[in-house]
Amino acid sequence: MKALVKRTAGRGFVLDDVPTPKIRGDEVLIRVRRAGVCGTDVHIYEWDPWASGRCRPPFVVGHEFAGDVVEVGALVTDVRVGDRVTAEGHIVPELSYFSRTGQAHVDPQTRIIGVDRDGCFAEFIAMPARNVWHLDDAITYEVGGIHDPMGNAFHTTLTAPIPGSVVLITGCGPIGCFAAGIAHSAGASRVIAVDPNPKRRALARAMGANDAVAPDEAADAVGRASRGLGADVVLEMSGVPSAVHQAFALVRNGGNVQMLGIPSKPMELDLATEVIFKGVTIYGVVGRRMYDTWLQMTQFLRSGSFDPTPVITHRMPMEAFDEAMALIKGGDAGKIVFEIG
Amino acid sequence: MKALVKRTAGRGFVLDDVPTPKIRGDEVLIRVRRAGVCGTDVHIYEWDPWASGRCRPPFVVGHEFAGDVVEVGALVTDVRVGDRVTAEGHIVPELSYFSRTGQAHVDPQTRIIGVDRDGCFAEFIAMPARNVWHLDDAITYEVGGIHDPMGNAFHTTLTAPIPGSVVLITGCGPIGCFAAGIAHSAGASRVIAVDPNPKRRALARAMGANDAVAPDEAADAVGRASRGLGADVVLEMSGVPSAVHQAFALVRNGGNVQMLGIPSKPMELDLATEVIFKGVTIYGVVGRRMYDTWLQMTQFLRSGSFDPTPVITHRMPMEAFDEAMALIKGGDAGKIVFEIG
Amino acid sequence: MKALVKRTAGRGFVLDDVPTPKIRGDEVLIRVRRAGVCGTDVHIYEWDPWASGRCRPPFVVGHEFAGDVVEVGALVTDVRVGDRVTAEGHIVPELSYFSRTGQAHVDPQTRIIGVDRDGCFAEFIAMPARNVWHLDDAITYEVGGIHDPMGNAFHTTLTAPIPGSVVLITGCGPIGCFAAGIAHSAGASRVIAVDPNPKRRALARAMGANDAVAPDEAADAVGRASRGLGADVVLEMSGVPSAVHQAFALVRNGGNVQMLGIPSKPMELDLATEVIFKGVTIYGVVGRRMYDTWLQMTQFLRSGSFDPTPVITHRMPMEAFDEAMALIKGGDAGKIVFEIG
Amino acid sequence: MKALVKRTAGRGFVLDDVPTPKIRGDEVLIRVRRAGVCGTDVHIYEWDPWASGRCRPPFVVGHEFAGDVVEVGALVTDVRVGDRVTAEGHIVPELSYFSRTGQAHVDPQTRIIGVDRDGCFAEFIAMPARNVWHLDDAITYEVGGIHDPMGNAFHTTLTAPIPGSVVLITGCGPIGCFAAGIAHSAGASRVIAVDPNPKRRALARAMGANDAVAPDEAADAVGRASRGLGADVVLEMSGVPSAVHQAFALVRNGGNVQMLGIPSKPMELDLATEVIFKGVTIYGVVGRRMYDTWLQMTQFLRSGSFDPTPVITHRMPMEAFDEAMALIKGGDAGKIVFEIG
Repeated sequence: MKALVKRTAGRGFVLDDVPTPKIRGDEVLIRVRRAGVCGTDVHIYEWDPWASGRCRPPFVVGHEFAGDVVEVGALVTDVRVGDRVTAEGHIVPELSYFSRTGQAHVDPQTRIIGVDRDGCFAEFIAMPARNVWHLDDAITYEVGGIHDPMGNAFHTTLTAPIPGSVVLITGCGPIGCFAAGIAHSAGASRVIAVDPNPKRRALARAMGANDAVAPDEAADAVGRASRGLGADVVLEMSGVPSAVHQAFALVRNGGNVQMLGIPSKPMELDLATEVIFKGVTIYGVVGRRMYDTWLQMTQFLRSGSFDPTPVITHRMPMEAFDEAMALIKGGDAGKIVFEIG
Repeated sequence: MKALVKRTAGRGFVLDDVPTPKIRGDEVLIRVRRAGVCGTDVHIYEWDPWASGRCRPPFVVGHEFAGDVVEVGALVTDVRVGDRVTAEGHIVPELSYFSRTGQAHVDPQTRIIGVDRDGCFAEFIAMPARNVWHLDDAITYEVGGIHDPMGNAFHTTLTAPIPGSVVLITGCGPIGCFAAGIAHSAGASRVIAVDPNPKRRALARAMGANDAVAPDEAADAVGRASRGLGADVVLEMSGVPSAVHQAFALVRNGGNVQMLGIPSKPMELDLATEVIFKGVTIYGVVGRRMYDTWLQMTQFLRSGSFDPTPVITHRMPMEAFDEAMALIKGGDAGKIVFEIG
Repeated sequence: MKALVKRTAGRGFVLDDVPTPKIRGDEVLIRVRRAGVCGTDVHIYEWDPWASGRCRPPFVVGHEFAGDVVEVGALVTDVRVGDRVTAEGHIVPELSYFSRTGQAHVDPQTRIIGVDRDGCFAEFIAMPARNVWHLDDAITYEVGGIHDPMGNAFHTTLTAPIPGSVVLITGCGPIGCFAAGIAHSAGASRVIAVDPNPKRRALARAMGANDAVAPDEAADAVGRASRGLGADVVLEMSGVPSAVHQAFALVRNGGNVQMLGIPSKPMELDLATEVIFKGVTIYGVVGRRMYDTWLQMTQFLRSGSFDPTPVITHRMPMEAFDEAMALIKGGDAGKIVFEIG
Repeated sequence: MKALVKRTAGRGFVLDDVPTPKIRGDEVLIRVRRAGVCGTDVHIYEWDPWASGRCRPPFVVGHEFAGDVVEVGALVTDVRVGDRVTAEGHIVPELSYFSRTGQAHVDPQTRIIGVDRDGCFAEFIAMPARNVWHLDDAITYEVGGIHDPMGNAFHTTLTAPIPGSVVLITGCGPIGCFAAGIAHSAGASRVIAVDPNPKRRALARAMGANDAVAPDEAADAVGRASRGLGADVVLEMSGVPSAVHQAFALVRNGGNVQMLGIPSKPMELDLATEVIFKGVTIYGVVGRRMYDTWLQMTQFLRSGSFDPTPVITHRMPMEAFDEAMALIKGGDAGKIVFEIG
């Protein structure tokens, strides 16, 4: 089959022919239709220090996708050939402490498709049946293909108290934009999105942000919306140090800061004034809760109260991978989707 | 001043001249502008067994209102003459166990205005400053005058997990209709309201119910919305035994039943099959959380995501009290507001 | 192998030779060492209306056990031959809505060993690997053999706020007695256990109840412990209507009532005064949370802060099943354990 | 009356005669019997940058105390002359957003006795009646006099999930030692206390820590107790950067870090690996929840499951203030109590 392969340590991907995966008795084989492109793929493409420290080429890249089940293992009972599906790309030991206590998303033994094992930028992918998530008939393959980052946004947003809250979102990449729509639909009193890039701000506005402002306008916007108290909830989606400091500066005393953006290196914090004296609660967000987050996401899509498609700015074949990487690095793209099968 | 008075044990009210209240050092005097009429007022008017067991005439009736502060006690620091306000009508000892642990709404020593002491169907009312709630400039006196029952609806709805949930509301009186709007704005996946009365169903639909159906259609509507699982959350707003049974029949296993409607007498329940084997959580709702509920209500009003005015079907002077009582007993009215000052 | 079999519809069990179970690729075979006897077994023995409505003979009875793994299926990776284990007896579809959202304990498709399929009063039992729970070396087979009812007690107790609370337990059967020990170790301010039977009260006291009193003394005990407020938490473990009413009478306003005991038929409740005006939260308890409850139980056993052995009053071979059934019906026994392998 | 006064900007206190406070209508006058000495008092004594930035001499110092009510204002209804009391030293506007939503402990308008207004190292102190907390007859003035720091420990500990958890406490000053006792009584599976000072470790052990170890032994102790997973809950009580890093290194993925210790200046954190990828929840602890924390503390004292007296290592008259300051700076003292009236 055709696949995008990280062939060797070093920059770039290769479009190649590789064997179609074989499945075990508890796995299913899925024909990939659509696959989302993520910043993580760029790290692997560029072979930055994180990627070279973690990944072991050769492997097929890509971890966000949707498609059709074409084969099921002998022990699989709840997935059938022909089912339209997406999947959780974090594969966790079934009986681990974390899996068994609702914390699979933070299991240190997690193996991620397209990072630690073969991924989905390919015509087919093998997945454990227990990672499969069925798509409603009304959900397109395209939307199915971005359930992974949408799930990050649902996890980040809905683990904070949203109804009635003033919500600040620092960083309007695709996940931040999704979060704007989710917060809006879940009854936020006001959604304020912050990004230096006007194209990204426009996307956030399209998704439901009441205000989408540059960083130096954020304090005023939060002050107006909260009568000077500060934001009830901050969703930190950028990983940029100045945004992290702004998150702590603008959250109200006793509020919540949800941290999804990954700072690339250690940074200085004044824990006394930024965290402790403010009495804030910080939550570090990893992946998606398995599978509470997936259910919430499906419910929002089913009701029609959340539509991610404005964030999808580019669609292309996976052969155009060099262009996709360049677009993401350029910072103006929303979500890019590969059209595969 | 002019006031509606429960003069003696027995049916009816009297419109009368009574002394304007004097205030203590920690109280304020409020000129009443608008006042909501409630089913509780009807019980007192009719002098039913509940009313005759609890109330001690003579007293001024009415417990929902908004108006202007015209005098403040010597020790009052956060309320000023001229402030536009409403108030929590449940007056609770300030240092009680319940007040001090966020549970003032269930303090057994609560005294309710218009029930246990003089109320608001009058030109003026004296209130403890700590029960006063300020109105935003954009909130009308009319909407301020129904914060009490709106607060019941916010309390009932937002103490359950709403974002993404299928929400069933049994009973479309004013509070049930408010709840339909709140659940919709807080991200419910689908809001299904049930009432035998088509006028009430039309109000629920106007407020945001996706489906507003007769009781015998409820099971189908819930089944469709939940793929046969049952409602995630049921808001029981009627107190009618058949609706209570329907609430337990249609909630999904592990779901939540919020009970606000008051059954008028004991009823039979099959606790094994209706409650225990289903693993449900039941929450008995009293009043409004002081003052978390009030804050949430203000945030929803401030954002514009909730508008209660479609539920207000009648406005009249308090002189028309006999007509108001008859309208509520007739069952077709939404909320009735007295225009006083 | 030797097994206790419900051979036909009608009263009694038969000790019989039956084929040793075969296992599937995702199952394990366990040699049973110890097995707890439960009131449910008595219902099946007596063939009461519940049993005749649910069970389909012939099948091996028994659902609480511990033993050694003697064979593992081809796909099993986390369980090995020789492991000392117990198991969750509720078998739930792996990918169901309930399993995937932390609510497997209330999945309506649950099949229970010894009720809906072959159970553990036998030399061997086949179990899905994902239902297996490993025993620490320090845990005896005997204590392993009663993890199921201990788990009911942990689930009931630790889903309520225990540290600092006045806890009332209505009903001192084995699960009520376990709950007394758990509440004590989890920091309850005072544990008050109620039962008409003095032998059961003595067991509750041995497990950690501060007070163990007859039903007519319960109100005084709660009043003294709570300065007249009422119990913060009530664990209803009896299913007896008078105890259910007492639970609601003695819980404080705003408190929690956890319902595990199963009333045998519908009963009358005054929802207004017993539930709604008190603002209580009721939680219907089914089984054990999979597997948060199991983890908490293991942590309490590991720390030594909870020891269930005083509740075990009888040990006997499974051949003595008629005697075991009689002892449980007599009401004086604590927990009975069959010594099998 | 006699009082310890911060007379002017600069080092030291003065024992002086000052006027007995006058009370307002909503205040009470308390004769001080016992008063705890806190590290904050040392900061004010030393006139360090924090103190000189915040405090405005002259004022009476001290913020932890117990005593007898000797006079009550005209509007006070729930406190009487002769009552034995302590008090919450954080004085918050009664109708503020924070006060009204259960978050008074983080109100930015808080004024602290002995810091922002006259304190309790004096024969008498005036307090708002709503800050008074009654002492049970069985509670000594001495224990009443340290409710403030005990409350910090209860707040820090009981806002995390303790029953069944492995709890790590970094820092064994008085509050860390109190926390060891609370965690033990609330059902922690194992309590591991860490401090470089062996005298402090001995106090922690006396209060209920299962292990009290030096920092370089902490990883082993946590690993053994948690089978390599990490601590479920960390209570950071030191504010020392190396301990903060250890807290994040030793908490398990998905665990809780409660931060009470105040780092004296900004420090570098690797948010990616220390917080986000671990999926931890951080809670910044300020003061005591008003008044949930006070109630929990009273319940633990009432039940006898928590006894703070081993932590009190020195008792002296307030005339010995220089000695008290030196003892605390020396690092070997537990809690010091002034015996005043």
